[in-house]
Amino acid sequence: MAPQSTIAPESTPTESTPTESTLTGQMIIAGELVTGGGATISAIDPATGEHLEPSYRYGSATDVTSASIAADAAFDTYRSTGATERAAFLERIAERLDALTDDLVARAGSETGLPAARLTGEVARTSGQLRLFADTLREGSWQGARIDPALPGRTPLPRADIRQRKVALGPVAVFGASNFPLAFSVAGGDTASALAAGCPVIVKAHDAHPGTSELVGRAITDAARDTGMPAGVFSLLYGDGPDLGIALVTDPRVQAVGFTGSRGAGLALVAAAQGRPRPIPVYVEMSSINPVFPLPAALATRAADLGAAFVGSLTLGAGQFCTNPGVVIAVDGPDLDTFISAAASAVAATSPATMLSPGIAAGYRAGVDDLRRVATVEARGLDTDSPHACRAALFSTDADTFLSSESLRQEVFGASSIVVKCRDTAQVAEVAAGLDGQLTATVHADDADLEAARALLPTLERTAGRILFNGWPTGVEVGHAMVHGGPFPATSDARSTSVGSRAIERFLRPVAYQDVPAALLPGAIADGNPQNIWRRIDGALTRD
Amino acid sequence: MAPQSTIAPESTPTESTPTESTLTGQMIIAGELVTGGGATISAIDPATGEHLEPSYRYGSATDVTSASIAADAAFDTYRSTGATERAAFLERIAERLDALTDDLVARAGSETGLPAARLTGEVARTSGQLRLFADTLREGSWQGARIDPALPGRTPLPRADIRQRKVALGPVAVFGASNFPLAFSVAGGDTASALAAGCPVIVKAHDAHPGTSELVGRAITDAARDTGMPAGVFSLLYGDGPDLGIALVTDPRVQAVGFTGSRGAGLALVAAAQGRPRPIPVYVEMSSINPVFPLPAALATRAADLGAAFVGSLTLGAGQFCTNPGVVIAVDGPDLDTFISAAASAVAATSPATMLSPGIAAGYRAGVDDLRRVATVEARGLDTDSPHACRAALFSTDADTFLSSESLRQEVFGASSIVVKCRDTAQVAEVAAGLDGQLTATVHADDADLEAARALLPTLERTAGRILFNGWPTGVEVGHAMVHGGPFPATSDARSTSVGSRAIERFLRPVAYQDVPAALLPGAIADGNPQNIWRRIDGALTRD
Repeated sequence: MAPQSTIAPESTPTESTPTESTLTGQMIIAGELVTGGGATISAIDPATGEHLEPSYRYGSATDVTSASIAADAAFDTYRSTGATERAAFLERIAERLDALTDDLVARAGSETGLPAARLTGEVARTSGQLRLFADTLREGSWQGARIDPALPGRTPLPRADIRQRKVALGPVAVFGASNFPLAFSVAGGDTASALAAGCPVIVKAHDAHPGTSELVGRAITDAARDTGMPAGVFSLLYGDGPDLGIALVTDPRVQAVGFTGSRGAGLALVAAAQGRPRPIPVYVEMSSINPVFPLPAALATRAADLGAAFVGSLTLGAGQFCTNPGVVIAVDGPDLDTFISAAASAVAATSPATMLSPGIAAGYRAGVDDLRRVATVEARGLDTDSPHACRAALFSTDADTFLSSESLRQEVFGASSIVVKCRDTAQVAEVAAGLDGQLTATVHADDADLEAARALLPTLERTAGRILFNGWPTGVEVGHAMVHGGPFPATSDARSTSVGSRAIERFLRPVAYQDVPAALLPGAIADGNPQNIWRRIDGALTRD
Repeated sequence: MAPQSTIAPESTPTESTPTESTLTGQMIIAGELVTGGGATISAIDPATGEHLEPSYRYGSATDVTSASIAADAAFDTYRSTGATERAAFLERIAERLDALTDDLVARAGSETGLPAARLTGEVARTSGQLRLFADTLREGSWQGARIDPALPGRTPLPRADIRQRKVALGPVAVFGASNFPLAFSVAGGDTASALAAGCPVIVKAHDAHPGTSELVGRAITDAARDTGMPAGVFSLLYGDGPDLGIALVTDPRVQAVGFTGSRGAGLALVAAAQGRPRPIPVYVEMSSINPVFPLPAALATRAADLGAAFVGSLTLGAGQFCTNPGVVIAVDGPDLDTFISAAASAVAATSPATMLSPGIAAGYRAGVDDLRRVATVEARGLDTDSPHACRAALFSTDADTFLSSESLRQEVFGASSIVVKCRDTAQVAEVAAGLDGQLTATVHADDADLEAARALLPTLERTAGRILFNGWPTGVEVGHAMVHGGPFPATSDARSTSVGSRAIERFLRPVAYQDVPAALLPGAIADGNPQNIWRRIDGALTRD
């Protein structure tokens, strides 16, 4: 199917865009609505425990095969669309999501307990992310164009004409995350970057927000139709992880996987991907405790302010962020006591917050119970009768205990953090060096801390994907320079990011073209630079 | 240890550079000569079967630990050297190898049976590769510098200052390959690109050329000393793969692996790397049969010439190249008969050639015997009494048999190839689509073949790392646009290349710096662009 040209900005979504009242409970396979034949689930409003209509039926391995065959059949057509056409597709999805904001916020609010203001922002973040990749596509550097021109007179051997560009990997499986029902779910960063790269996407919806998933899935489907993309470019399936999820990851047509979620589920997907007859790249974001290092001078000048601000980051969204600050590492003494005291007061005044799902709330309670057995409780948030609420928790321990206890270094998903008291700066460095891989590492430093910060920096570079100073790790900017990734177990592949424009690189690989006839060369590496993009000629960047 | 500044061009290697007569049979751990405590091996001259002095003793897991501790200790010092300093180190290695050319050619010739002209070229290729990475370092784009400046006035939330650069992964384990005792061995592409990235390197020498490995290893060690690099930046170990090799890959300090060799050994390393408590990237180049597609018009105009030229590529270096053309896929008929007839005549006139080692020669004979059972023998090369020589082999079969026989699609390392006769162009496409991942795919096309070639191209892009027209796949240019890689099982990671300047990316990962004080920012992302490199500011490339 030939892609249409760019959508005129004044065009509007057609009437088929669903509203919440039209939710069907069906999967989408290559543009067709399909009713699953498996178990029936429905979303639960975590604030009330009520089941939400409609119910959704799980798909089967057969549905995975149907979706992957359609994706594979669409692949060559889809990847050969130009950057302009794919950018128009992404922007059309963004327009449709923006137009659907009220419905999305209402439904996602019921399914996740997240407040409307947060969800309104998340819709904008999701559509903004799609537009960032549209811009990235048009800029063109993602194609990695390189040309080493022929040197027919070179001795002892002539050099052939060799050119290089990146091509899309193939159909990509994306797993929706529970904690960002929009920005890390059906049309989230994994889907946006894979579609941008030229890869068809098959999403496994998260069970916690099936209705939101359907709304978004239908918006993508409509946008594909609006912009003339092949129907197989997108499918949305419902099913459980060990069954349908593994079938998706092991499907021979699927060529890469994107996932954000728990360590257990993530490692199962990694093992399945690696166990295939032909292993594939798998980008799994799992667990991170996001250490915070308030350095001595910063603590001396503003311990109380830091303690209160820390709790603001800790309890944001009931602590349900990958970048939640789960450990504070500092030199023990009166200033740290002040920090802890201010943080404890703030935690004690924190209202209980509904968590995303009953399962997540149960996991949080279990994690906090584990910590209580080995660490000192400094404060708990206000109590509640709600069965699915997060009651914030602050613990403390000494560095020796922390270093010797594996369980103290595990992520507790939710508003729980532990302060690690160190004897001196050397022990701070020792604790830092003993940490697992992290998404973020945060330093609070005054001018007088500069040399201490400089000494810590190499360790943090080896540990984390993002290093930030005098701020808080929650809040991940979507831009060109962001890295949302990091060494294991933060992710399964530290060479990439799941947020920001560099995320597109995860779904591409380089191919060299040697003495390929001019008539067959892709635009990115054609003579005369028809796309007017930056290319590397004999190693030097140029737009010539 | 602080690095010295750039080496003056007139300086020459010091007297300690070894010559063949000074080979010690010892390993090198962080600049120290160490005698192993394990089994004793020595190189065998494959032309004569004679053992070569000196003997080498295998190291142990303890030696792996010593080398990795030294590498880890050197890592932060080494990676913080500037691009200029590391470029000087690489160029110094290149100078020392060039100065050692006669000794290297003599020793490698005895150890591998490869002719002097080939080895002389391989020394130049190896030093040229090191210089390419020195140039790449100075150009600076390898650091992936990106800056999204702060937007303090943005609403609803201000944007922090976010910057990104790539950092080195850590110590890298490199396994020397048997078929390129210089260019893919101790100072080969894996070592050069890892050192360029800022990673210390620990090489496991290949048993087939221990003396060559020692000569090169001592040249690297001397170059590190010459240029003030920390001694732990390089170690050279001897040992067997299942023992010392696995110990190296599973050492907790080792952060990435580079390997070129057999599929069995490669998959064992991949499994070991993935089975670690913290898995690491592993770049394994394994097996490829490098399909050649002579299209109908090309066959009609020059079948005999193509058949003869094909055998030139097939028998080059006794066929011991990763890119050896192991299968020819074409439409059956008189023109293909002419191609086969010309190729058979050329094969029949081919003199036997000594293979790299007794093991490789035995593997070749077994592979050819397997093919004889399922395919038609079109020609064999001249016979020989030499036990370790390659007697070239050309087979043919029909496409249905090829598609149904797994063994026909396996790589036979050496000068063996099979012509697959297809009913029509559609069957050529079917055979192409059924191929495993490949390093290369070659098309021979005349103008009248252009549309057939266009139809084939998407399949080849999905299959191979390099697509070439009207040439032969042997001969891998070292440059900026080369891709020596490809989908599984050609390699374990199709997102990279092991040859060419992009190979450096394998040993880097991005890190974001958010609101990091100016005094602590690395040069690549510092204010004012002190390195004068290309950076992406708010997504746009600039040198400002």
